[in-house]
Amino acid sequence: MTDDVAPDFSFALNATDGAARAGVIATPRGEIRTPAFMPVGTAGTVKAMLVDHVRATGADIVLGNTYHLMLRPGAERVARLGGLHRFMNWPRPILTDSGGFQVMSLAQLRKLTEQGVEFQSHIDGSRHMLTPERSIEIQCLLGSDIQMQLDECPAIPIEQDKARASMELSVRWAKRSKAAFADMAAPGQALFGIVQGANYEHLRRESLDALLALDLPGYAVGGLAVGEGREEMFRVLEFTCPHMAADRPRYLMGVGKPADIVGAVARGIDMFDCVAPTRSGRHGQAWTTAGAVNLKNAQFAEDNAPLDPDSDCPASRDYSKAYLHHLFRAGEYLGPMLLTWHNLHYYQQLMAGLRAAIANGRLAGFIDGFKRATGEAIV
Amino acid sequence: MTDDVAPDFSFALNATDGAARAGVIATPRGEIRTPAFMPVGTAGTVKAMLVDHVRATGADIVLGNTYHLMLRPGAERVARLGGLHRFMNWPRPILTDSGGFQVMSLAQLRKLTEQGVEFQSHIDGSRHMLTPERSIEIQCLLGSDIQMQLDECPAIPIEQDKARASMELSVRWAKRSKAAFADMAAPGQALFGIVQGANYEHLRRESLDALLALDLPGYAVGGLAVGEGREEMFRVLEFTCPHMAADRPRYLMGVGKPADIVGAVARGIDMFDCVAPTRSGRHGQAWTTAGAVNLKNAQFAEDNAPLDPDSDCPASRDYSKAYLHHLFRAGEYLGPMLLTWHNLHYYQQLMAGLRAAIANGRLAGFIDGFKRATGEAIV
Repeated sequence: MTDDVAPDFSFALNATDGAARAGVIATPRGEIRTPAFMPVGTAGTVKAMLVDHVRATGADIVLGNTYHLMLRPGAERVARLGGLHRFMNWPRPILTDSGGFQVMSLAQLRKLTEQGVEFQSHIDGSRHMLTPERSIEIQCLLGSDIQMQLDECPAIPIEQDKARASMELSVRWAKRSKAAFADMAAPGQALFGIVQGANYEHLRRESLDALLALDLPGYAVGGLAVGEGREEMFRVLEFTCPHMAADRPRYLMGVGKPADIVGAVARGIDMFDCVAPTRSGRHGQAWTTAGAVNLKNAQFAEDNAPLDPDSDCPASRDYSKAYLHHLFRAGEYLGPMLLTWHNLHYYQQLMAGLRAAIANGRLAGFIDGFKRATGEAIV
Repeated sequence: MTDDVAPDFSFALNATDGAARAGVIATPRGEIRTPAFMPVGTAGTVKAMLVDHVRATGADIVLGNTYHLMLRPGAERVARLGGLHRFMNWPRPILTDSGGFQVMSLAQLRKLTEQGVEFQSHIDGSRHMLTPERSIEIQCLLGSDIQMQLDECPAIPIEQDKARASMELSVRWAKRSKAAFADMAAPGQALFGIVQGANYEHLRRESLDALLALDLPGYAVGGLAVGEGREEMFRVLEFTCPHMAADRPRYLMGVGKPADIVGAVARGIDMFDCVAPTRSGRHGQAWTTAGAVNLKNAQFAEDNAPLDPDSDCPASRDYSKAYLHHLFRAGEYLGPMLLTWHNLHYYQQLMAGLRAAIANGRLAGFIDGFKRATGEAIV
């Protein structure tokens, strides 16, 4: 009888090392090993990547952007075509954001009210209204496994009274999101709340307490991916993470570079997403165990060594830096294809290393090695 | 002792069906089953394709463009990096053209003399001189397995006296190419001559007779890829092919669409190259067993069927037309990536079908089926 019942959403914490955690999120579409990095598949594709290769790098879950997908091809269309998993040929877990962050950063003529955000599409100028309820409806039409509440995401620095008003609005939207989700979601799907409050400790705490009262299956830390700096981000995590539910996954939205991720894992974060590996890959930047290098630089024109001869990723192992340099100079598709692949593989190897270090109680040594190899001072 | 000797270049004709031929070209870097389609890898990459997937479609050989590679990254640089095969991670046979055709169509301020062609790079304006000897030198630096003589390639229609003068220049350049090749080439590499003479039967015959006297390991038919029309192209092949050496491969340069290839195979051609499948793929056009379709068209917006559910090519089988439509509308890399892959797979399947039909003496039936399925009248 239980064969017909899809497994529910759950999180198992398997190991801790200081504040760092290693675990597994179970969903009906497969497991997500944490700490997890989620490649960004904005418009239903991880840019310049074949989906089988995304999986082969070690990704358990990808992220889709509600704002982009609602505008093109449209959530109702994706639903008629069988949902986002089928559409993009990715049968494993998908997390969708609420669309709010992209509305604020990409759309035109935005108008924020208690009800939601009215905006014009940056693609065709069409008018749309994104409310907490409509965001959940869209995410259910897409069929994502982890859905995010609509929130307001102000940039830091922000005055305290504005930060409070914004945070309180996001809490009210969380409650409306939960009610809409209860009406519309399928078994095994999960709604995450988003902690706001800028860099004010008491506001973060108030936000978190209000969200914990909603008993959601996961919580995100929002508002830290917009350039406030690594030290300030770590400071916010240090006073926020200890109060987050220990038995729920913690997701740091839109972060980050490798050193951001390593430091946030050490402070108790379980999930990440960021365009850095894919966007950098399209622009010629490779993340390596020795830090970042730009393959467009003339120094690589006759460098016959691959990015990593010992890698099990073909993009890292089978092509010389001179060839990658040539591909970017010539504007060939294959440059972004190979370098995105390499970068995503690097990120997933980093996550695998973090998971193993936490499981073995050796995170401090792992971080020391990371700092030495990359020259990063603040981790 | 013979283990140390690279196998020589050779051609074995295994079957004929009317004028059509099926065989195998052997080279030190592997066999080329004929009739063969060579994907175009202009600047050291088959655009938007991973090289392993090029091979998986069934390609035995790819083409590199001497003009592009001599300008960027430069033939001497490719040689220092170990040659074109290593550079692009393609260990199998490569054919390079002479560079002449691209100089005529892409470069600026061209000046043609008996000595060669002087031109300015379309990339950076630098001045270059391409002679028969320099073309062979470049092709040897690249390390290509099949090299082409420098020729002049006038567009049809052309007056007879101009066509004769041009053809005679190409014959003189063939002789110079052969002498340079004898000095510079490695064992197992082959130089092909190019039959010119526009659409004049007696000029084609004179060109061919002069080239046959050079006893080259293969011969190409040039000047038929520049828009003279399919019927006129077939007419030239019908009076040219019967006089070509039966024991040498015959290469129709720059051709073509599927119906061009089917008709040319029926008239005795063994090798083809064309940008059609790759260029069309980047622009949303799919070649299918039922002809060509453009996936940008609105009719595909909710077409949930793949291009070919029975294909063994993931690009043809695992993604809906609606998804491909979306990728092209959204300008995503994955659209060109998947459609190029599909198109190259379609082309190689077509070649495999032609080879099997010739081997079984059933080419006429194969062509009837092709005409019915695609609606092509002239094949």
